[in-house]
Amino acid sequence: MAAKAKIGVLGASGYTGAELVRLLLRHPRAEIVLLTADRRAGKLMADVFPQFSPYALPTLTSIEQADWKALGLDLAFCALPHGTTQKVITELMARAPRTKVVDLSADFRLADTQAYARWYGHAHFAPKLQKGAVYGLTEIYRSKVKAARLVANPGCYTTCSELPLIPLLKAKAIDPDEIVIDAKSGMTGAGRTAREEMLFSEVSEGFHAYGVGHHRHMAELDQEFSLAAGREVVVTFTPHLVPMNRGIFSTIYVRGLKASPEQLHAMLLKTYAKEPFVHVLPFGVTPQTRHVRGSNMTFIGVAADRIPGRAIIVSTLDNLTKGASGQAVQNMNVMLGFPEAMGLEQVALFP
Amino acid sequence: MAAKAKIGVLGASGYTGAELVRLLLRHPRAEIVLLTADRRAGKLMADVFPQFSPYALPTLTSIEQADWKALGLDLAFCALPHGTTQKVITELMARAPRTKVVDLSADFRLADTQAYARWYGHAHFAPKLQKGAVYGLTEIYRSKVKAARLVANPGCYTTCSELPLIPLLKAKAIDPDEIVIDAKSGMTGAGRTAREEMLFSEVSEGFHAYGVGHHRHMAELDQEFSLAAGREVVVTFTPHLVPMNRGIFSTIYVRGLKASPEQLHAMLLKTYAKEPFVHVLPFGVTPQTRHVRGSNMTFIGVAADRIPGRAIIVSTLDNLTKGASGQAVQNMNVMLGFPEAMGLEQVALFP
Amino acid sequence: MAAKAKIGVLGASGYTGAELVRLLLRHPRAEIVLLTADRRAGKLMADVFPQFSPYALPTLTSIEQADWKALGLDLAFCALPHGTTQKVITELMARAPRTKVVDLSADFRLADTQAYARWYGHAHFAPKLQKGAVYGLTEIYRSKVKAARLVANPGCYTTCSELPLIPLLKAKAIDPDEIVIDAKSGMTGAGRTAREEMLFSEVSEGFHAYGVGHHRHMAELDQEFSLAAGREVVVTFTPHLVPMNRGIFSTIYVRGLKASPEQLHAMLLKTYAKEPFVHVLPFGVTPQTRHVRGSNMTFIGVAADRIPGRAIIVSTLDNLTKGASGQAVQNMNVMLGFPEAMGLEQVALFP
Amino acid sequence: MAAKAKIGVLGASGYTGAELVRLLLRHPRAEIVLLTADRRAGKLMADVFPQFSPYALPTLTSIEQADWKALGLDLAFCALPHGTTQKVITELMARAPRTKVVDLSADFRLADTQAYARWYGHAHFAPKLQKGAVYGLTEIYRSKVKAARLVANPGCYTTCSELPLIPLLKAKAIDPDEIVIDAKSGMTGAGRTAREEMLFSEVSEGFHAYGVGHHRHMAELDQEFSLAAGREVVVTFTPHLVPMNRGIFSTIYVRGLKASPEQLHAMLLKTYAKEPFVHVLPFGVTPQTRHVRGSNMTFIGVAADRIPGRAIIVSTLDNLTKGASGQAVQNMNVMLGFPEAMGLEQVALFP
Repeated sequence: MAAKAKIGVLGASGYTGAELVRLLLRHPRAEIVLLTADRRAGKLMADVFPQFSPYALPTLTSIEQADWKALGLDLAFCALPHGTTQKVITELMARAPRTKVVDLSADFRLADTQAYARWYGHAHFAPKLQKGAVYGLTEIYRSKVKAARLVANPGCYTTCSELPLIPLLKAKAIDPDEIVIDAKSGMTGAGRTAREEMLFSEVSEGFHAYGVGHHRHMAELDQEFSLAAGREVVVTFTPHLVPMNRGIFSTIYVRGLKASPEQLHAMLLKTYAKEPFVHVLPFGVTPQTRHVRGSNMTFIGVAADRIPGRAIIVSTLDNLTKGASGQAVQNMNVMLGFPEAMGLEQVALFP
Repeated sequence: MAAKAKIGVLGASGYTGAELVRLLLRHPRAEIVLLTADRRAGKLMADVFPQFSPYALPTLTSIEQADWKALGLDLAFCALPHGTTQKVITELMARAPRTKVVDLSADFRLADTQAYARWYGHAHFAPKLQKGAVYGLTEIYRSKVKAARLVANPGCYTTCSELPLIPLLKAKAIDPDEIVIDAKSGMTGAGRTAREEMLFSEVSEGFHAYGVGHHRHMAELDQEFSLAAGREVVVTFTPHLVPMNRGIFSTIYVRGLKASPEQLHAMLLKTYAKEPFVHVLPFGVTPQTRHVRGSNMTFIGVAADRIPGRAIIVSTLDNLTKGASGQAVQNMNVMLGFPEAMGLEQVALFP
Repeated sequence: MAAKAKIGVLGASGYTGAELVRLLLRHPRAEIVLLTADRRAGKLMADVFPQFSPYALPTLTSIEQADWKALGLDLAFCALPHGTTQKVITELMARAPRTKVVDLSADFRLADTQAYARWYGHAHFAPKLQKGAVYGLTEIYRSKVKAARLVANPGCYTTCSELPLIPLLKAKAIDPDEIVIDAKSGMTGAGRTAREEMLFSEVSEGFHAYGVGHHRHMAELDQEFSLAAGREVVVTFTPHLVPMNRGIFSTIYVRGLKASPEQLHAMLLKTYAKEPFVHVLPFGVTPQTRHVRGSNMTFIGVAADRIPGRAIIVSTLDNLTKGASGQAVQNMNVMLGFPEAMGLEQVALFP
Repeated sequence: MAAKAKIGVLGASGYTGAELVRLLLRHPRAEIVLLTADRRAGKLMADVFPQFSPYALPTLTSIEQADWKALGLDLAFCALPHGTTQKVITELMARAPRTKVVDLSADFRLADTQAYARWYGHAHFAPKLQKGAVYGLTEIYRSKVKAARLVANPGCYTTCSELPLIPLLKAKAIDPDEIVIDAKSGMTGAGRTAREEMLFSEVSEGFHAYGVGHHRHMAELDQEFSLAAGREVVVTFTPHLVPMNRGIFSTIYVRGLKASPEQLHAMLLKTYAKEPFVHVLPFGVTPQTRHVRGSNMTFIGVAADRIPGRAIIVSTLDNLTKGASGQAVQNMNVMLGFPEAMGLEQVALFP
């Protein structure tokens, strides 16, 4: 049996951290040798996430205590809050030149550090690293990911919209100025920080929009859509919160350029025919978040609007899996030369 | 004390029926004298909805057993399934010439019986009654409702979109060809019929769209928007289901015609300044379904999109109250000369 | 029309505070003249609870800023955290000798200040006030509440168990040493404080027990059950959390002493025959939390166990209404000489 | 690589059917060659459960069309409704003498066909088969399961109570006459049949008991507890429904016989030390349903009651996995000589 890769998870006490551990515990080629969680350092992972009680895992430690060189990690997943990330990764990559990194924060997603400064309100702390970072939308950037040392794992909202739209924009099949994305997210997308507006009684039994007209994910969408279209694209995007744990759902309103809705569907079907994690449903059929829950799948549906020339594209994925930790492991597989689907073959959990 | 009006509820075993009973039980001028439920005839309302156990209510009866003349109803609410409704109301109005009717089904909402036939797949059974029916969007058609004998209570999705858009279309402030309505509904909107796709385990912990590209509510939207704009309007409309009981939420993408988002907001604020059941939030603030739950309120918010010239209007109401039974009681109040808000002043139940 | 009573709500930014405001806004004899919320002082109630946007309410203020004498409150509801409460009420009652108080915290519920010290880990700050405090389980202590200046409103768990058990213990109909209470609560019972274990994603889609073997509510149960039985009673009590907002549900296992389950049912039926807020269901029928949601009702059911001599009593109420703010308003009505059910007649909101 | 076993799933359109398919699709030694669903015969599994769209699976067929002999199944899982089951299995076992069967219904769980007749209201249709059937609580009856041709897979409620109690009853450590089981179940336990009381709006946001004092699962508990105790045992058992999809949670009140709560804990810890699917938490720690979701784990906690001599045992599992299809696959593994945990190693999905 091949040796296992030594893996670290920085920020293991959050939801994307737990999802990484869930996947890696059953990955045939990965061995978790480091779990960090600054505020919980010294605790067991089972104290923080009791579902891991039956399994042997390293005790949680603080990042400060980690000796990057001695650890000799093959790969570190970084699931830390925005900002901190840049500093930690800079240090880690300097100390441990052999260690590769998949970063799940937004810190390295924007190639343009000016755009970063504009959206995040401060200069980027690691502009040099940014230059080498690869945007890890695996299906689109697979070959670059293969060669990368630092991969910026895409956001959940953005992955869900980019997978259906990038091929259509590249093919100039839709009008780049007429895209409206009405996006909905489950609550785990907001993380595990204790905030009043995320309490059960604040979010159950109701629905609402947030960040209307201005949301940081727009920067990432702008970047990728502009690249695909070959010119500047600015989309209308509204995120909403659904009283459910997992799932991103994008209802995308587009206008075809010479292409009919059926043709848009055919293009996507062809683009993703051999992809293990992108599944295009029959024309007119739209997906449900629950049917991808816990899996690394993206389900895409295309339907005709009753207004001629317009189509409605619906896309869904699990924000913690394909929208975060699943795609991160997919990127790890590509970076370390493992089969791309290894450890990611769980079927969705429904009901 | 003034005499109470004699009220009947036809179809009391469904959710809109129960909501009518909830409201009428505490209405100072209404007395429930008839409750029908064909399949449950002979049962107590408490058997069908145990929350009514402590209250005295008529035993459920079948419509066939109802002697319309002898009952002498002042007003009947009709919460029956589509189709049956037309026949029952025709008979009732012929037998009891003094009885007024508020119909909660879709049967009398479309003034054009041709459009009805097209959307519902059969000729209208009561085209003569249709001519006298008034579309009961109270805030817009108050004076007509006052004079009507038969009021067609609007749908929940449609009320939620029409209240913000009709004033803007009338004022020619937005482009009628560029309206995209992304609508979300709680599960009670689908009624109480036992169907697999409405089971708890099918709809909890998930989100999905339905009727993409074609949904009967479109006919009602087309009618009202065309009337308001003074020319034909066809909108893009996608309904979705949220794992919650009550609430309609509409995210509406519009483009201003000379009017800025701030001006659209000002128009709505002015239009609804004195309305007890339509509340326009400060510019940029958008509402949540949970803050209108159980009340007859519609909350409306207006925000600027980051794309110049575009605005995002968000509107919410409780589908069983303002979206059905609450507006029906509001119409009853207008029709019977009671204060319009009587019996409808409950504050929303949150959390 | 009679003058309205001047009412203050201390701690208006929590869930019981909001529930008080919901009820008082529609109470014919109450006028809210003071709302406090220390951390949110200066904000509007609509900022903290948007459902109140359409209504005129006093701006939130801090307790420090309140001039008790000048305010001349007829009654203050105190919905503050444990501990603070004792100090605030002491000061208020000294400064404003005419003002009555209903306290919703646990601070004045234990008549024995020694027991208080044992369960709460510090000496009681206001032992003198404690002597005059009346335990406000309205149906049981109505006449004492009428004469009280300070009423300690019972807890939600305790109200739900005491209403069915106190009459049976008084009648010596059940064995006081064989009571097992398996209690379940909705999430609003845990309040609005931002804590990780109350986040949506921590509590939705799951069920768990807490405080197993030791929970502060036990002290209150011990006190009332011992009083009713005329000797020391210690019960087995396990609280659980249900992924729902409102509702307490108690499954109570008892053994009859000469009395059959049917006789226990008959006793409860007789005891509560004329009570507006306690409804005993037919023998063998057990209640559901959803059928009392938003109402001030307690529903009680009694069934026979298959083991002879044992009965299962099931009791439910809305923890924010009869379990807190509704009962507090009921106590206010008794204390101020208003009809006991005034402002509390809302029918439950289901679905 | 070893040849794969040919597996059939009878009743694939229900929730336990889907769960079997989820597990078997990733089982290294199983190949699904037959899926039946009478009412959906001719449809694809993806039509009935869209989460399976990306995978190749046999088309749904009716049982009548199945040629048991030709199919040559190694093992059939039977997830059919009660009653039908006995007939189908009798036929199948006669025609295909090599095929083993794991039945997920209650039909073969009661060794005493008289008890069956009493609880189910009709004589058993296959009393001869019943004699050879083995009750498939794997951890307890492993060696019998190994030799069996027909295994009756235990119920979800019963598995959850039997795993903690059987060892204690065998050791005569607790009083068999003083067991109170307060059990709670997620909604998938009620199956996928369209019934009004299982609609989302009937069961979300609330909690209730059912079958109080009389529930068919009692027969199974009586049988196993009596066997373990070596004399007749009758327990108090109350089932409840929780607004969640998956999970059984049992709060069990017991009284030690000479054994302290700590000793009860130590016994369970020792009994299950090497079991892959039963995990005993540290003394005083109680489990949550969400931490076993989607896994084949049972988590057990033991705490002391404040009343001396009494303990509270809390046990939880996923009703569709360890409570049904997971344990069924575990039994299959034992029956076919595969490693017992094969295909069942998924870590719980939380959040």
